[in-house]
Amino acid sequence: MVAYGEFRSGYGGDKEDTRMVFFGLRYILETYLLRQWTIEDVEKSEKFYRTHMAPAMTSFPFPKDLFLRFIEKHDGYFPIKLEALPEGICVNAHVPVYQITSTGEFAPLCTYLEVILTMIWYPTTVATLSRRARDVIEAAFEQSVEGGAVSPLVPSRLHDFGFRGCCTVEQSVLGGVAHLLNFDGTDTLSAAYYAQFELNDGEPIGVSIPATEHSVMTSWPSERDAILNMISHFGSGIFACVMDSYDYAKALAEVVPSIAQAQKGAGGYMVLRPDSGDPVEAVIAALEAAEKVFGVDTNSKGYKVPRGCGVIQGDGIDLQKLSEILAAVLEKGFSAEAVAFGMGGGLLQKVNRDTMSFATKLSHVVYADGTPADIMKTPTGDSAKISFPGSLAVKRVGGVPTVFPAEGGHVALEENLLKVVYDHGPIQNTWKNFKQLRQQVAQEWAALPKAADVVSEPLAEKVAKVRHDRHI
Amino acid sequence: MVAYGEFRSGYGGDKEDTRMVFFGLRYILETYLLRQWTIEDVEKSEKFYRTHMAPAMTSFPFPKDLFLRFIEKHDGYFPIKLEALPEGICVNAHVPVYQITSTGEFAPLCTYLEVILTMIWYPTTVATLSRRARDVIEAAFEQSVEGGAVSPLVPSRLHDFGFRGCCTVEQSVLGGVAHLLNFDGTDTLSAAYYAQFELNDGEPIGVSIPATEHSVMTSWPSERDAILNMISHFGSGIFACVMDSYDYAKALAEVVPSIAQAQKGAGGYMVLRPDSGDPVEAVIAALEAAEKVFGVDTNSKGYKVPRGCGVIQGDGIDLQKLSEILAAVLEKGFSAEAVAFGMGGGLLQKVNRDTMSFATKLSHVVYADGTPADIMKTPTGDSAKISFPGSLAVKRVGGVPTVFPAEGGHVALEENLLKVVYDHGPIQNTWKNFKQLRQQVAQEWAALPKAADVVSEPLAEKVAKVRHDRHI
Repeated sequence: MVAYGEFRSGYGGDKEDTRMVFFGLRYILETYLLRQWTIEDVEKSEKFYRTHMAPAMTSFPFPKDLFLRFIEKHDGYFPIKLEALPEGICVNAHVPVYQITSTGEFAPLCTYLEVILTMIWYPTTVATLSRRARDVIEAAFEQSVEGGAVSPLVPSRLHDFGFRGCCTVEQSVLGGVAHLLNFDGTDTLSAAYYAQFELNDGEPIGVSIPATEHSVMTSWPSERDAILNMISHFGSGIFACVMDSYDYAKALAEVVPSIAQAQKGAGGYMVLRPDSGDPVEAVIAALEAAEKVFGVDTNSKGYKVPRGCGVIQGDGIDLQKLSEILAAVLEKGFSAEAVAFGMGGGLLQKVNRDTMSFATKLSHVVYADGTPADIMKTPTGDSAKISFPGSLAVKRVGGVPTVFPAEGGHVALEENLLKVVYDHGPIQNTWKNFKQLRQQVAQEWAALPKAADVVSEPLAEKVAKVRHDRHI
Repeated sequence: MVAYGEFRSGYGGDKEDTRMVFFGLRYILETYLLRQWTIEDVEKSEKFYRTHMAPAMTSFPFPKDLFLRFIEKHDGYFPIKLEALPEGICVNAHVPVYQITSTGEFAPLCTYLEVILTMIWYPTTVATLSRRARDVIEAAFEQSVEGGAVSPLVPSRLHDFGFRGCCTVEQSVLGGVAHLLNFDGTDTLSAAYYAQFELNDGEPIGVSIPATEHSVMTSWPSERDAILNMISHFGSGIFACVMDSYDYAKALAEVVPSIAQAQKGAGGYMVLRPDSGDPVEAVIAALEAAEKVFGVDTNSKGYKVPRGCGVIQGDGIDLQKLSEILAAVLEKGFSAEAVAFGMGGGLLQKVNRDTMSFATKLSHVVYADGTPADIMKTPTGDSAKISFPGSLAVKRVGGVPTVFPAEGGHVALEENLLKVVYDHGPIQNTWKNFKQLRQQVAQEWAALPKAADVVSEPLAEKVAKVRHDRHI
């Protein structure tokens, strides 16, 4: 049996831009697939399945014999072959991202691990969202910042605030690392640690700055005292202060001017952080306060850059709001470099399997009598849910990863982007380190057309033939 | 220092019903808080913090000395005291669900674990969502089912389909278990296993039934063959078949009648599962097909019950859609018992920290000179984000958990619902088993008023005093 996994749409159902950053398979592979089953595991499972059933029934079907057999035959490794796209590749929607093959007595186990593999939707969706945010930020930089889209400031413009909004620590690692493919800025330390020590040979991947949260501001006798303390420790570098503990407008009008001289004396860069109210208005208010208190320089593109002061908006940020804020900032004549963003739940939690419509579908089966059949799902009225028939391969056509039937000689082994990463046990995989992955993502994302027909001629013919033969 | 965690609103910002089912602290406590730090951990952390910093800075502040000191003094256990509400308690919004206290040299570590503890938002939000779904189902049962809201069918009416839509396995366990507080039905086997063997002494907690998914339907020569195979294995019990692999309307009009005789002969219960199209229309279409093919009985409440056949809708279900479908079902004269629901991403993933607006806030600090201060955040223009000052206690007033200042003699130790669950290391905790938790949730949820003012008179006075004294 053969099954494959596919994102059936671009981010948020976008038809104009169906690109994605494929990421996260290594984690799933190393954490779950490389785990060897033991006889004790099978006995525990049997005990569980015997009791997990509606009252009228006897027991939940569990192929215990097959599990015991692969423990013996494959040293406890799950008996499937898994092919997958390389980590960090950019493809358009509908390109299979993995393919599972099971054969012989183990054929029925093909989709047994479907649930675990399907979870690839998460890191891929976060990596894609974060990359799209980078597109928006780069466009605003191109228009309003010296150095444009390649300014060294870009990688710190979207900071990951999502740790506490995650469901679990495991999620924070996976989602946080996906974001780090596109940006440096993160307070999701679990992910920064994992990226640095597990995926990048100990070389740092993430950055952050000292920043106050409300408890720091409110535990000082006044906000002014809290900020002066920050200046005394970090004033020559860069630091952020949250400004809405009591009254945001008053803090901008009275507290910021009262610390201006100390901050100018320290010579560093202070970041004002609004945290409630309308995000667009809150950012503009902070920029206007910065202009008034610290002054601005006008850059060669004609935009104002506040001196030694900027803003980070970390409340209520999603892709849409980020675009709105940047549009308003530029409209008011400020340069995009004066604003950074923090995205929390919007980055790591407010996505789901439907965001890019991920599914695993069976595509090929060989019956007990040896007859092969290519199969597909074709629900009427929902053409996006149609699945491809047969074993599949992916190769670049004019640079664009395109789907072919695996058989028929269309795709040579070395051209196939679906590489075997596991085969009834571990195989030798070469993983790029994280810095290399980042470079690959940046290059491939820019080079890939925003939308493309990824179905090759031979596959289209096959789809038509299967539909005809099976009258579907 | 003292900090506490609070849900600032009811589910989805609901002001009419601010109840919640508090759940999940045991997992966080046992998984993260009971982990002993080692010197090696601290050295790894130091290495990480030294490099996690914006380029201009030297290193990220990390209180290494404090970590080494608590390893020595508290055997590696994190040096805080944690109080929390009991698992499975129902409270209204704004009741503190946990409180962290740190003292002496370790005071600065008070909110160091805030991120981990804040993740309590997730299981509590899922448990609350699932409970609210049960309210909707019970109301429809009361109106249209023999036995009403206490029918033994209720616990299987909302089935957890969410495993594959989770970000990670850890999330599936936590979210899936939260759902099981309210219902029996689950295919999130990770959670059913955990609930049974870790939380319920091995006694089963979840149920499920044999069911086809698309790969089963499409790998048979026809849908009819696939269903006949299911009947041959499970026809005398209860089983489900997904019906939209090719053409849902045609499957209802042609395939279902063609297997009717075999199914009637087997004598069990067949569940039709739509999986695309408009959920309301798809359910009604299936019920009408069931009526036509299998016939109906009319129950004592005047509603039609299809004979040996029902529907499960597992696509596109959230709280709103579930209500709409049940309203349409009853409107068409069918009994609610003919319909079950599967909720996937809607149950386990499409929630976030804002769904019930969870936050942890500092409330009390003793300065280096010994002066104590009660502190609070009071952002203008967002009164829901105001936090309480001082150490807090919770006791029932007229049955309703209500918030008091901890000091002042308002709440006796044994009345305080915030119980110490950890104190600079493990303490003896007694946990109810899962069946007891379920009973508690059902009773407390029904008994708690939907909305209540949870701020006691003494706390309101204290809030006013702190605002006055601090001019905020």
